[in-house]
Amino acid sequence: MKKIFFWFSPLALLAMTSLSYAFEPLPAMPPIPTDNPMSEAKVSLGRQLYFDKRLSVDGTISCNSCHNVMGSGSDNRPVSVGVGGKKGGRNAPTVWNSAYLSVQFWDGRAATLEDQAKGPVLNPVEMGMHSAADAEARIRSIPGYVTQFNEVFGAANSVTYDNIAKAIAAYERTLITPNSPFDRYQKGEKSAMSEQALRGMKTVEKIGCTACHTGPDFAGPEMPAGQGFYQKFPIYAANNPYVSKYHLMDDEGRYGVTHEESDKHLWRVQTWRNVALTAPYFHTGSVATLDEAVRVMARSQLGLTLKEGDVADIVAFLNSLTGEFPVQSMPRLPQTPNRTLTAE
Amino acid sequence: MKKIFFWFSPLALLAMTSLSYAFEPLPAMPPIPTDNPMSEAKVSLGRQLYFDKRLSVDGTISCNSCHNVMGSGSDNRPVSVGVGGKKGGRNAPTVWNSAYLSVQFWDGRAATLEDQAKGPVLNPVEMGMHSAADAEARIRSIPGYVTQFNEVFGAANSVTYDNIAKAIAAYERTLITPNSPFDRYQKGEKSAMSEQALRGMKTVEKIGCTACHTGPDFAGPEMPAGQGFYQKFPIYAANNPYVSKYHLMDDEGRYGVTHEESDKHLWRVQTWRNVALTAPYFHTGSVATLDEAVRVMARSQLGLTLKEGDVADIVAFLNSLTGEFPVQSMPRLPQTPNRTLTAE
Repeated sequence: MKKIFFWFSPLALLAMTSLSYAFEPLPAMPPIPTDNPMSEAKVSLGRQLYFDKRLSVDGTISCNSCHNVMGSGSDNRPVSVGVGGKKGGRNAPTVWNSAYLSVQFWDGRAATLEDQAKGPVLNPVEMGMHSAADAEARIRSIPGYVTQFNEVFGAANSVTYDNIAKAIAAYERTLITPNSPFDRYQKGEKSAMSEQALRGMKTVEKIGCTACHTGPDFAGPEMPAGQGFYQKFPIYAANNPYVSKYHLMDDEGRYGVTHEESDKHLWRVQTWRNVALTAPYFHTGSVATLDEAVRVMARSQLGLTLKEGDVADIVAFLNSLTGEFPVQSMPRLPQTPNRTLTAE
Repeated sequence: MKKIFFWFSPLALLAMTSLSYAFEPLPAMPPIPTDNPMSEAKVSLGRQLYFDKRLSVDGTISCNSCHNVMGSGSDNRPVSVGVGGKKGGRNAPTVWNSAYLSVQFWDGRAATLEDQAKGPVLNPVEMGMHSAADAEARIRSIPGYVTQFNEVFGAANSVTYDNIAKAIAAYERTLITPNSPFDRYQKGEKSAMSEQALRGMKTVEKIGCTACHTGPDFAGPEMPAGQGFYQKFPIYAANNPYVSKYHLMDDEGRYGVTHEESDKHLWRVQTWRNVALTAPYFHTGSVATLDEAVRVMARSQLGLTLKEGDVADIVAFLNSLTGEFPVQSMPRLPQTPNRTLTAE
């Protein structure tokens, strides 16, 4: 999994924006960890689990409930609603192309998609299972899953919490959206992007957005798995009316993971891929439109108040990062004849 | 839509059980109303709407949330959970093969699938939209839907609540599960059913279950659309320990619709198709297993206490009514770039 990579500070990157190095098409495949190789059967199993509400304590919430792959890969709500109508603390990030990210969650607290998948199942305001053992027992009580786990992982008793997470992560690594207008443009199809989107592309370089939003996922330079690319948000907090309007500093971000003072209000740099589809915006989900999100970012990260024409150009550019969503078959979930697993 | 039909009272039917008239395979197609003809585009549109949580007030609940076509067509919970964690009053019936039923809902209050589809969207404990106009406005604000509605219904301004319901109903008419072991047996494949299931088939005739559970859907004799086939439940309420244990009489059933004394505790006769998959059972969802449901029905409807061997045989027979679930493509939902529709 380790890769050679070069580290540039955001400011060094900023100084280099005239090189247009920041723009790369999406690679055809995300990194695949050596301890979780892909197979068709594993992806199929992971897809079933991803859509299976029986992974939640009361049978009402699946991964897809908040990361809807029929749409944006998020739920387009400020914060998600979990079991019992409980609300989460942060906006649900998109699952699309998350396989390219070197860390998961807003605060980077999971190093891999496998680790990430284990979080929401046990979170009391998300899927609410009481323990990993409970989740295993639930899945183990579904005969059609037991057969598949043992086949996919090549051993008896393969229904483990680790393997549940591995199967879900393998499915998530197929959730890639290639061929956005931007990607087609980068590959030589010069008509793929509008004049306005091209103006926006120049603007985001010129004003410095691509100091952080670089790399194929526009979520920072390539990093080894488990090492995050973070940025403070907001950088320009003083006299910034958006801070109170949108509650930008109520949550201390990565500080909640490390408890290091230097991590206060640090956040993983978010992908721009399909960002036009994932409103509302920021960890708060408090900004309902993309144009307002652009204004907030310019003011908060660059100290700039943009002209409305520039905002519109940037929004057009960001829309050119909406990719093609692969057609999928609907999973058929293994059933438990004659009984239910989620009676309360 | 009107069809010639013959009416037999349950008792008359009971007297005729030796003829095995009760057993028919599932017809290949359900009735299609003349005012809502099927088309591929309409079914595709209906499938998108069926899975679209934006038909709920806060974007958390779709038709599929409680009638999960990846599984049993129900949610396998006692009662469903709607917006804001609110619980419904009755167990969610399966959507599979509901197109064969002459009335919809436990109490038959909707004459058609079209009428049925309009209920949950506006029910405050289900999808919680405030009005039909709000639901129309929500769908109308999604450009990809506007185009499809106008094409499917052949006119401008076709996004209406009626047409939303028509599209969903058209999709639901494709949710048919043919080729159960029972159907294959009826068509001559004598090895399709086990000896135990065949014993169970004889038992349900002999003891009188098929007085009501007759017809291809095992939900009563063929009726014209809009005319229901109801039965009192429980018939034998006196000294019946299940009544209090499972709260069988807390809800007065069809009386809540008609307010006629004779309709107290009347319920639409439920389909046996895929009944093995739809635990928990009854309008209460209070009975967790199929074998217990068989005991409750025998005691409550026929005044019988069955031997455990008979219960097992009947359960085996009911399992032979689990059909084949058609493979479906996952819908891709039209998006609203740059904004969300469900910010709160």
